[in-house]
Amino acid sequence: MTHAAIVEAAARIAPFVRRTPVLTSRTLDALAGRAVYFKAELFQITGSFKYRGATNAVQKLPAGTRGVVTHSSGNHGQALAKAAQIRGIPATIVMPATASAVKKAAVLGYGAAVVECGASLPEREAAVRSIQDKTGALAIPPFDHEDVIAGQGTAALELLEEIPDLDAIVAPVGGGGLISGFCLAAGSVRVFGAEPAGADDAARSKAAGERVRLEKTSSIADGLLANYLGELTWPIIRDRVEQIFTVSEDEIRAALTLVWERMKVLIEPSAAVGVAAVLSEPFRAVKADRIGVVLCGGNVTLPAI
Amino acid sequence: MTHAAIVEAAARIAPFVRRTPVLTSRTLDALAGRAVYFKAELFQITGSFKYRGATNAVQKLPAGTRGVVTHSSGNHGQALAKAAQIRGIPATIVMPATASAVKKAAVLGYGAAVVECGASLPEREAAVRSIQDKTGALAIPPFDHEDVIAGQGTAALELLEEIPDLDAIVAPVGGGGLISGFCLAAGSVRVFGAEPAGADDAARSKAAGERVRLEKTSSIADGLLANYLGELTWPIIRDRVEQIFTVSEDEIRAALTLVWERMKVLIEPSAAVGVAAVLSEPFRAVKADRIGVVLCGGNVTLPAI
Repeated sequence: MTHAAIVEAAARIAPFVRRTPVLTSRTLDALAGRAVYFKAELFQITGSFKYRGATNAVQKLPAGTRGVVTHSSGNHGQALAKAAQIRGIPATIVMPATASAVKKAAVLGYGAAVVECGASLPEREAAVRSIQDKTGALAIPPFDHEDVIAGQGTAALELLEEIPDLDAIVAPVGGGGLISGFCLAAGSVRVFGAEPAGADDAARSKAAGERVRLEKTSSIADGLLANYLGELTWPIIRDRVEQIFTVSEDEIRAALTLVWERMKVLIEPSAAVGVAAVLSEPFRAVKADRIGVVLCGGNVTLPAI
Repeated sequence: MTHAAIVEAAARIAPFVRRTPVLTSRTLDALAGRAVYFKAELFQITGSFKYRGATNAVQKLPAGTRGVVTHSSGNHGQALAKAAQIRGIPATIVMPATASAVKKAAVLGYGAAVVECGASLPEREAAVRSIQDKTGALAIPPFDHEDVIAGQGTAALELLEEIPDLDAIVAPVGGGGLISGFCLAAGSVRVFGAEPAGADDAARSKAAGERVRLEKTSSIADGLLANYLGELTWPIIRDRVEQIFTVSEDEIRAALTLVWERMKVLIEPSAAVGVAAVLSEPFRAVKADRIGVVLCGGNVTLPAI
């Protein structure tokens, strides 16, 4: 995959996605000790950058595609549901029976069917295969897919168009789709990753020089709980990401509260991971005056006021 | 006061205030049955439009002014503290001893002194007079002041520059400073007000044709709990505001949750009042395809996640 794939994806999805704003905050600049530009993908349609990748993948499907299917209890499910609805293709989202009613309602609201299954990965994958067999639907995975990666990279392209002289970009890492797309989009700009310490497979993989699979992951940043990087995303991250910073749950909660209170934007915990990394002590060693951070999503259930 | 006062204020405060974005949401448009443009003053410095009025008033003070003082447990206190800090003038904010630690910390963080007093209006006013006598500070009231009104109006000027063909503007009403400024800025554009039913002095005043003073007010929208309109703001509202819509606490909470969940911006309850009015059944009678709504502030203490 190359930079050209991102540029093509940007042209393809432009009629469907929102060009999200780039936010700044004097308070955050002061705390970070540098200028920070926040690409606010929480304002993207369906509430996260995932809509970019899903739209790129769905728009590339041939006419006559009988349906799309994925398993996701999170942002990719909502994104695929909406992207398919726009194209007029039936979508089925496999969700664990334990997923929240709010998340099911969101997917149903975008016109997709919800199929419940057990919570384990084998059960989810079996449910997807069963739907494929029955309906002829194509599976669109959440990150390990060239068109999905290319779509996610368009957020970096927009950020660099608006702030061309960035020294570095920071993106959170789950399965690696977002940061892989950013690597391809970033040209010579440095790319750093951010991970919860409780789901640090990418940091461990970088350290080991090979894909590390975690048995268990745990974090409030529920969008980043992937146990391992993808086959496509790992080599890009291995070769192109300069360093992965890990942050504690306390750091994530502090960054979340900070962004809510001072920037007034309702990011989800996964989006706070990149902010927490930039504010962390180890990040001070990075010499970069102007950095971009993607606020990847805003799908968080708030306590009632 | 005239439109020219708003234009002058805009030029005066331009170096100090943030030009806030105008947001849109397909979900909110669909619910409102028209195109709604949200002027996002929650992103203003100090978290509310109050910084515009405070900055205009403070920037107009003569050189050698010895200090400014106000009583406020809310957004005007923070705004005046910051505006005075920028000008290098000492500020004292009188707050009831019962005000939250967070609000006191915000004012202290902007370099102002906090003086605690009793919660009643006479106690607050006495504390302000005592500080004036001791320090020679000038009192800058929260709304009933020409320079404050003119500053608030600059938000409407920006909104109309960005979306020139609005049919109407909706603003929440507390003491009336914001909506008075909007009336002066709006030219021929229609202006509507929005109030909590529990603090409906403006609606009652319009109905009575004279200023009505409420003995008690109560609402989650704590920025709109004024008991009566100002001497300056009342005639402007009487003559120029087409209608004041009142909304219930349930409507305010529903609008607050809706904006948080769907627009991902952390407005405070007072800002939800305008949104609730636009979504209310009585507002459907207003024939206006394109309306502006000011999201007046974002200073809300969230429950911990």
